[in-house]
Amino acid sequence: MDYALESLKKHYEWQGKIEVVSRAPVNTREDLSLAYTPGVAEPCLVIHKDAQQSYALTRRSHLIAVVTDGTAVLGLGDIGPEAAMPVMEGKAVLFKEFGNVDAVPLCIRSRDVDEIVNTVKLLCGSFGGINLEDISAPRCFEIERRLKECCDIPIFHDDQHGTAIVVLAAVINALRITGRKIGDVSVTINGAGAAGIATVRLLNDYGIKNAILCDRQGAIYKNRDNLNAEKQKIAEITNPERRSGTLADAMAGADIFIGLSAPACVSKAMVESMNKDPIVFAMANPIPEITPDLAKAGGAAIVGTGRSDFPNQINNALAFPGVFRGALNELASDINEEMKLAAAKAIAEHIKENELTADNIIPSPLDKSAARAVAEAVSKAAKDSGVSRAAWKREKTLS
Amino acid sequence: MDYALESLKKHYEWQGKIEVVSRAPVNTREDLSLAYTPGVAEPCLVIHKDAQQSYALTRRSHLIAVVTDGTAVLGLGDIGPEAAMPVMEGKAVLFKEFGNVDAVPLCIRSRDVDEIVNTVKLLCGSFGGINLEDISAPRCFEIERRLKECCDIPIFHDDQHGTAIVVLAAVINALRITGRKIGDVSVTINGAGAAGIATVRLLNDYGIKNAILCDRQGAIYKNRDNLNAEKQKIAEITNPERRSGTLADAMAGADIFIGLSAPACVSKAMVESMNKDPIVFAMANPIPEITPDLAKAGGAAIVGTGRSDFPNQINNALAFPGVFRGALNELASDINEEMKLAAAKAIAEHIKENELTADNIIPSPLDKSAARAVAEAVSKAAKDSGVSRAAWKREKTLS
Repeated sequence: MDYALESLKKHYEWQGKIEVVSRAPVNTREDLSLAYTPGVAEPCLVIHKDAQQSYALTRRSHLIAVVTDGTAVLGLGDIGPEAAMPVMEGKAVLFKEFGNVDAVPLCIRSRDVDEIVNTVKLLCGSFGGINLEDISAPRCFEIERRLKECCDIPIFHDDQHGTAIVVLAAVINALRITGRKIGDVSVTINGAGAAGIATVRLLNDYGIKNAILCDRQGAIYKNRDNLNAEKQKIAEITNPERRSGTLADAMAGADIFIGLSAPACVSKAMVESMNKDPIVFAMANPIPEITPDLAKAGGAAIVGTGRSDFPNQINNALAFPGVFRGALNELASDINEEMKLAAAKAIAEHIKENELTADNIIPSPLDKSAARAVAEAVSKAAKDSGVSRAAWKREKTLS
Repeated sequence: MDYALESLKKHYEWQGKIEVVSRAPVNTREDLSLAYTPGVAEPCLVIHKDAQQSYALTRRSHLIAVVTDGTAVLGLGDIGPEAAMPVMEGKAVLFKEFGNVDAVPLCIRSRDVDEIVNTVKLLCGSFGGINLEDISAPRCFEIERRLKECCDIPIFHDDQHGTAIVVLAAVINALRITGRKIGDVSVTINGAGAAGIATVRLLNDYGIKNAILCDRQGAIYKNRDNLNAEKQKIAEITNPERRSGTLADAMAGADIFIGLSAPACVSKAMVESMNKDPIVFAMANPIPEITPDLAKAGGAAIVGTGRSDFPNQINNALAFPGVFRGALNELASDINEEMKLAAAKAIAEHIKENELTADNIIPSPLDKSAARAVAEAVSKAAKDSGVSRAAWKREKTLS
């Protein structure tokens, strides 16, 4: 199938992939009096006394915004807010279908960090969470950090954390199969954009002690030239031996390669240079860093990609619907590191021991039960880590 | 029924009166490839080349934002953005049920005009129109004026123009019944907020030559003390005889009274002082300026209110769904004076000649066929006045 042409045709037919519908009837005068004036004044007054009642009396506990400026859309780059909308609507479809999360796409006509931060900040009272999407690095880091400081709802940049969660899930199961311990393995990650930075952080938090992140200049190490602020921070917590050199140098002897970078930048010889039974996740889309066949020919024990036509599709659609569903269930004030780790573990554990094989380390992105498992784990982690506000909601609405 | 308690109970049950649902299936890998990656890249690229394709390839031609800062909500006043949400969701329900318009409520956490303008401006690429709602006067005038200057989609402050349209519709039919000509009648309007200012403007545009707008100090006339900028402009185009005095003074001899003000501020004697067979629209909610019984006892030939339990409910729900539906059908760049006049005429004409009586001058707000008639009339006026961009859409999507 020619996906490009067929998708274009479908988009003209759909006239939008999402729709806002009514949950309240307005067929009679009485209906109007309950859903609108005069009855609606009462829920307004209840929220006016206690703003958090908005979670119980409006759509807020199901509703997030998917926010972009259109600067880093798919592999297309900086195509602007209007052109980004089909992706954001697609994201909203996945949020709804997999997590029962209502998502409103907001594409901002500005590339200015201050303007983007201020716009989102001023809209926080209308939503239960904010999913940042397809904002170019390193601006995405500052935008997310500043929003986390000034907003009282979860801020989650999916290109960073959604990717990090599914990669960690795949790593956990790959280690189970190959019998390695997390504290013993070395990992080389190529691509120091949003996804690479967040992935190396989450792996670090999970217990990886020896990770090397590479950008186009090769391995990132402390005090290397040309490191932006984010990379400098990464240099502090990775590459303990301060190894320098090319990607090929960094891959030599590594147990795991994670590609979040560019097509066909890894050769069979580079896989051959890795440790015994290496794990290769080549996630560049649509053309991976190395094809699965070539990686296996180079000795890879386990191979994953971002593509649906190979085994082990490592796709963040497995993470974000359940992550937000879990956070919204708890009226969480944040999606923190504990919740991300819990999501990754839940995805990994969703593959039962007797189903776990080298070609089945991660659930299908179409498996809706995986999102439910993620939501439960994230809810629990929110409670355990103290960012849940759901006890408040239950208490108040029952009184 | 105790609407307050029953409405509160319903709101806890509803958990939001609107919901975002999916229009695209995502059950198979092929579904995902069409609605999301890799297929979605193609509609993105088409919009990147021509931003207006977003009207055909995303939800934009059905989608508006309902924007408030929560400063003038119903009769409740400045209750803030979160507490305003139940009203905005109710509005979104009416938009959908009566106009098939998808409406996303955005409640802004700022009372600063610059911040509100900038927030809406930056989000214009995501919507086909903006309905401003429940923003206090006189800030609402500046916000709307500045947004109309900087946005390429319709900006419509419903408290102003929705009210003005339904009032004009009621006036047109009241004049038909009482056999008066628009150029001959004198009108006194009480309430110089958003609704009053817009109503006197639209009546003026329709051909009323002798209108007097009153605020709490009485009649507004040229060079009176204590006039804000909006009232100064109104003084230029109304009250040609520069009459001063109280509301009672301004009502003496008038053909029509329009109350958009405060409960019970009009007496039977004030109605008696009006011209023969006066028309009284007492629209303060929930307690009108004068009760219909008392107005009739004072000689009123035709009485209308904002309430559903009296005849002639003059409710802007008759206007806004059809107005936006008509504008969106044309991908209109503006909702201009011609479109508002067309909407008012369509509402008036929706009452057939043989159904027109003193107690039936305006359709019920529950009459969905009225919204369709409004939409058609507004579409035509958009074309005739040159703000339609629909020809462009048809041409492009067919190629």
